[in-house]
Amino acid sequence: MKIRGAPLLGVAAAYGVYLGVRDSKNLFKDLERVIKYLSTSRPTARNLFWALEEMKETAYAHKKEPAGKIKHILLEKAERILEEDKEICRKIGKFGSRLIKNNDRILTHCNAGGLATADYGTALGVIFASHSERKKIKVYADETRPVLQGARLTAWELIREGIDTTLICDNMAAHLMSKGEIDKVIVGADRIAGNGDTANKIGTYNLALLTHYHRIPFYVAAPVSTIDIRIKSGKDITIEQRNADEVRKIGSAYIAPKQVKVLNPAFDVTPARFITAIITEKGILRKPFARSIKKA
Amino acid sequence: MKIRGAPLLGVAAAYGVYLGVRDSKNLFKDLERVIKYLSTSRPTARNLFWALEEMKETAYAHKKEPAGKIKHILLEKAERILEEDKEICRKIGKFGSRLIKNNDRILTHCNAGGLATADYGTALGVIFASHSERKKIKVYADETRPVLQGARLTAWELIREGIDTTLICDNMAAHLMSKGEIDKVIVGADRIAGNGDTANKIGTYNLALLTHYHRIPFYVAAPVSTIDIRIKSGKDITIEQRNADEVRKIGSAYIAPKQVKVLNPAFDVTPARFITAIITEKGILRKPFARSIKKA
Repeated sequence: MKIRGAPLLGVAAAYGVYLGVRDSKNLFKDLERVIKYLSTSRPTARNLFWALEEMKETAYAHKKEPAGKIKHILLEKAERILEEDKEICRKIGKFGSRLIKNNDRILTHCNAGGLATADYGTALGVIFASHSERKKIKVYADETRPVLQGARLTAWELIREGIDTTLICDNMAAHLMSKGEIDKVIVGADRIAGNGDTANKIGTYNLALLTHYHRIPFYVAAPVSTIDIRIKSGKDITIEQRNADEVRKIGSAYIAPKQVKVLNPAFDVTPARFITAIITEKGILRKPFARSIKKA
Repeated sequence: MKIRGAPLLGVAAAYGVYLGVRDSKNLFKDLERVIKYLSTSRPTARNLFWALEEMKETAYAHKKEPAGKIKHILLEKAERILEEDKEICRKIGKFGSRLIKNNDRILTHCNAGGLATADYGTALGVIFASHSERKKIKVYADETRPVLQGARLTAWELIREGIDTTLICDNMAAHLMSKGEIDKVIVGADRIAGNGDTANKIGTYNLALLTHYHRIPFYVAAPVSTIDIRIKSGKDITIEQRNADEVRKIGSAYIAPKQVKVLNPAFDVTPARFITAIITEKGILRKPFARSIKKA
């Protein structure tokens, strides 16, 4: 959790592979070991596995070269993944800002900003792009329990850019929607199945159901590398269960009885039917997602 | 917030009136002043105003008696409100437990237990009664941000009674429902309009919408004194807005940028159509609530 956010996990995994083999005397054996090890770090975000696959393919494509050259190629590949992520986020921002109107009030959940990517962000990239185009927008940030990425990271990123930001608790969104205070919801994604079902931070499915009832557009912003076309639907996405003390404690202080049982799924799955569109660097994907995803 | 929970606010208000006039040399002048002052303490919970009205009526009904006797009558009235609240909670528990089946998994929000009433509780009263009837139940407690009544109070009350309790963050309920893990939701109430629209802790409307989509029964448990028949619908219920630092801080520690704007409504309104039944000491009220409430 020193590094989080699907795109950033991908970038970090790429550099991790390079660092893991840099001093290796047995390159391909260590490559396999390092990739296997890194793949156990987090189960849900697709980009982690995507980056590991990219690094592996790159190494095997140059198998006949000297080890020193392959290592150099792997470093260059990691650097390219980093630079491409920055460009991808800018493109997502640009495409997504087409969906944002002047005076929109946008709700976001968790942190899909510069702190979750190489730079700029996915969901927040759309917000930053709209802001830089001088659209007047107001952003509500869900604090996002238990790890409070919204309160700690998203609020900080938005305020730093001078964007009108209001922090709310996760359970307040429905009330705001019923008062007509939310025009759009934009979130990031950790893994998108071939049919558009989307795993993202716990609470995302909750929000999607609320937008469905209140007839509010619900957008997912993510690079194409977050899409896992080998997975047909969200049912096949592994949801990481995290430590109970993330819920029982805040910092070092207990906020609940120490012995209480806890459920702490880090993600949930939003069925594609609740998603208005998926904003990628290849454009805005519309329904049916199975087709638009394949095309992208 | 030293005292919270609609029924307990009513009990405390009754004693507050007595304490406010106990040493008075000008009984009815001080009575009016004390009632006016106490009525400004919290705007939403009906029971507070109900108890103040009960105390006022009691005093005026004995207007011709000596001041010392009226004071004594007011103390007796406060004690009766306390004792009646205990009985009412037991009755709510007994009626409500008819709705609970063996092996039910029940979700509750905030704290509507012994710490929110004179004793036993409303929503938790139903759970305690079911447990004492040896029904096997499993309870999920929403932690209930920002003040964490679920984590701090409900979890403590349930564990103390040996009830199988699991704490979750407020944004996890939809995920659990989609997995078929929740059979029923039971919450308390702060004010119920004549048509059944119910103000309760922020996040209740959110839960009600989720139960609606997942076809899960949603029950409100409250004494008849929580019902405000002079109010036709939830639109006329005043929602208390609380201090921003309840959201920005936990204990004395900031969890968000100090300068971030915050919305902090303490309650929301759940439209009657999402409520399966209202459990009162007069029985289980079914739709149409306008009729069943009037009868109760």
